[in-house]
Amino acid sequence: MKINTHYLDLKPSYLFKTIASKTAEYKKAHPEADIISLGIGDVTLPLCKSAVSALSKAVGDMSKRETFHGYPSSFGEDFLLSAIQKHYHEHIGADVDTSEIVVTCGAKEDIANILDIFDKDNTVLIPDPVYPVYCDTNIMDGRKIKFASAGEENLFLPLPTDDYAADIIYLCSPNNPTGSAYTRAQLKLWVDFAIEHKAVILYDAAYEMFVTDKDCPRSIFEIEGARSCAIEFCSFSKTAGFTGMRCGYTVIPKELAVDGVHLLDLWKRRQSTKFNGVAYIIQKAAASVFSDEGYEEIKENIRYYQQNTANMMRVFDSMGITYFGGKNSPYIWMKCPQNMKSWDFFELMLNRCCVIGTPGEGFGENGEGYFRLSGFGNVDRTLEALDRMQKNLTL
Amino acid sequence: MKINTHYLDLKPSYLFKTIASKTAEYKKAHPEADIISLGIGDVTLPLCKSAVSALSKAVGDMSKRETFHGYPSSFGEDFLLSAIQKHYHEHIGADVDTSEIVVTCGAKEDIANILDIFDKDNTVLIPDPVYPVYCDTNIMDGRKIKFASAGEENLFLPLPTDDYAADIIYLCSPNNPTGSAYTRAQLKLWVDFAIEHKAVILYDAAYEMFVTDKDCPRSIFEIEGARSCAIEFCSFSKTAGFTGMRCGYTVIPKELAVDGVHLLDLWKRRQSTKFNGVAYIIQKAAASVFSDEGYEEIKENIRYYQQNTANMMRVFDSMGITYFGGKNSPYIWMKCPQNMKSWDFFELMLNRCCVIGTPGEGFGENGEGYFRLSGFGNVDRTLEALDRMQKNLTL
Repeated sequence: MKINTHYLDLKPSYLFKTIASKTAEYKKAHPEADIISLGIGDVTLPLCKSAVSALSKAVGDMSKRETFHGYPSSFGEDFLLSAIQKHYHEHIGADVDTSEIVVTCGAKEDIANILDIFDKDNTVLIPDPVYPVYCDTNIMDGRKIKFASAGEENLFLPLPTDDYAADIIYLCSPNNPTGSAYTRAQLKLWVDFAIEHKAVILYDAAYEMFVTDKDCPRSIFEIEGARSCAIEFCSFSKTAGFTGMRCGYTVIPKELAVDGVHLLDLWKRRQSTKFNGVAYIIQKAAASVFSDEGYEEIKENIRYYQQNTANMMRVFDSMGITYFGGKNSPYIWMKCPQNMKSWDFFELMLNRCCVIGTPGEGFGENGEGYFRLSGFGNVDRTLEALDRMQKNLTL
Repeated sequence: MKINTHYLDLKPSYLFKTIASKTAEYKKAHPEADIISLGIGDVTLPLCKSAVSALSKAVGDMSKRETFHGYPSSFGEDFLLSAIQKHYHEHIGADVDTSEIVVTCGAKEDIANILDIFDKDNTVLIPDPVYPVYCDTNIMDGRKIKFASAGEENLFLPLPTDDYAADIIYLCSPNNPTGSAYTRAQLKLWVDFAIEHKAVILYDAAYEMFVTDKDCPRSIFEIEGARSCAIEFCSFSKTAGFTGMRCGYTVIPKELAVDGVHLLDLWKRRQSTKFNGVAYIIQKAAASVFSDEGYEEIKENIRYYQQNTANMMRVFDSMGITYFGGKNSPYIWMKCPQNMKSWDFFELMLNRCCVIGTPGEGFGENGEGYFRLSGFGNVDRTLEALDRMQKNLTL
């Protein structure tokens, strides 16, 4: 039996595992250290009241024969599909049909699994820096990868050029890790480019709830033409603090096709063959956050996290630190002071401030010299971390 | 952009979808019909008390900041890994290390996703008839498929012969759909064969809780040599009625390797890249069923379903119907009377008895002429279905 040797082309370790082991090492050497993590993009606020109440009720359903639920639909239950459709219509301003939505265990899973429906012989375009899953999943398949260079010169928002011709184009806006967000006009350039090159855009909208700028779209389907070239991935993880609940969704427009084969059909075939749906209780909780009451509750939580990015921006402005993101994103992408390398700055932050961040180098070559800080922490602890940076970092 | 054209080699529809549409058609034509489904292998009893109680407590944890859980481990939380290890040790009699267990959203997902770590250029051996996922997932990858012929001549338990030389060998015992189960001596033949041919066995043990025969193993790891050639898939779906909860696990022994590359490492890399773990509340519920109290509760549920297969066997014996399975399995694999074809018998059962079963033909060529009945229904309704068969089927 032969293994998939493309796995041997992967770099040996995953970014967050390295951070965890370095942190564990430090803790072992300094058991008294009060470490504040602004690293991994995990949420910290508990589930909102509507979700807890929906969960409790659903658990009750599962405890009685009359209301018990077995195998869920491989594509999502109707009540959740309708709730997501309503979210698109009322909050985002884009209309999608419930049959175009497929509910899953999360956007990470979907972004990885969608590659099943594409030939290995496609060239992919991936922004650099970027969420490592885009690269690693394509390396596992042996696809040819090109990078779209993001940097200070383009405010970390690369735009199409002839060099970027590709079959599959990844875009993430608001961006992880840089926190930058495309405007509608910029995104339209990508849509036109994709149509011209018969490419498909894989659009990661996981952070759409953090968009505050009216010029920045929350969905690629706000852009004219996108329905003929784009697939959108979204998730309840950041929208509703569901990182520990695992629920996401993918939207594929009906008309998106290659030589008469509809990508929505391929994706549904993939899912019905390889996936048995999301737990009923999780779907009930997910649907509840798009009720009128639930939506107010999750917006309140988003506002809480936005205090953190606002505080970071205020302090970094006063310290003269160069940064990106924050405005439409829970992430601040800071330039490491004094041209330090990412991992050197990681060590400095750990040793001088006991603060964990994410070295930008882990997101690609262009991330070298940058550092990602997350706004998903506790407001007081984040203020404490900022205070330590002000006191202990001599820039 | 090019699609994965192997998808076009798939048969247009999935077995259970066809059953559902035929049933819906019948219902439309006969709105008053009282249809009993003994078709899809979904459970019907509610979650056991221990699982409901664990779920409620876990929902409480998610509602408070101090006890909230974000991203789970991609491999499973320690408390669940330990509970599964205990299950292997105490109930099955096989020892596995917690580091060899990977928790997931279900066995269907794992059986499909494990293929990521294998080259497309491998020959797979799949029993016929069999759970359609084994075939379809390999067709999607374009792998060469051979079939191991199961039939009355071998009691639906094919044994290795030189013709069956392959790189990846699927076994499912107790079997879905035939209900047959290998003895230890038979399974040892497959383990020796796999070692001889440097093949890997993908062993689907989803129905292990239904084994009653002391000669039949519940895990392939009860067999000497299996640790050097086998991967085992299992699930809480049938073990604890978790079809609507979505939790399973895969066990890969540490020593299973090809040219020094360990399959456990590849699988963990696959999972950490493409999967973000199972919801905390689901994992808590899963762990609870392997507590002493929980285990008694799920065994009680298994005994309930076993009444159905016992009743079917009793009635079919009295009717002179030939059948397989039932003893170590929730499934009865009956021979269609009068050499009828599977779908013809499906129509007959629907029209004469208002009873839904699963046409054996949907599980492969050798399934033609057979019919699968599930023991997961309500005892009274199953008795009613059997009564209708006795009255309305003139054999």
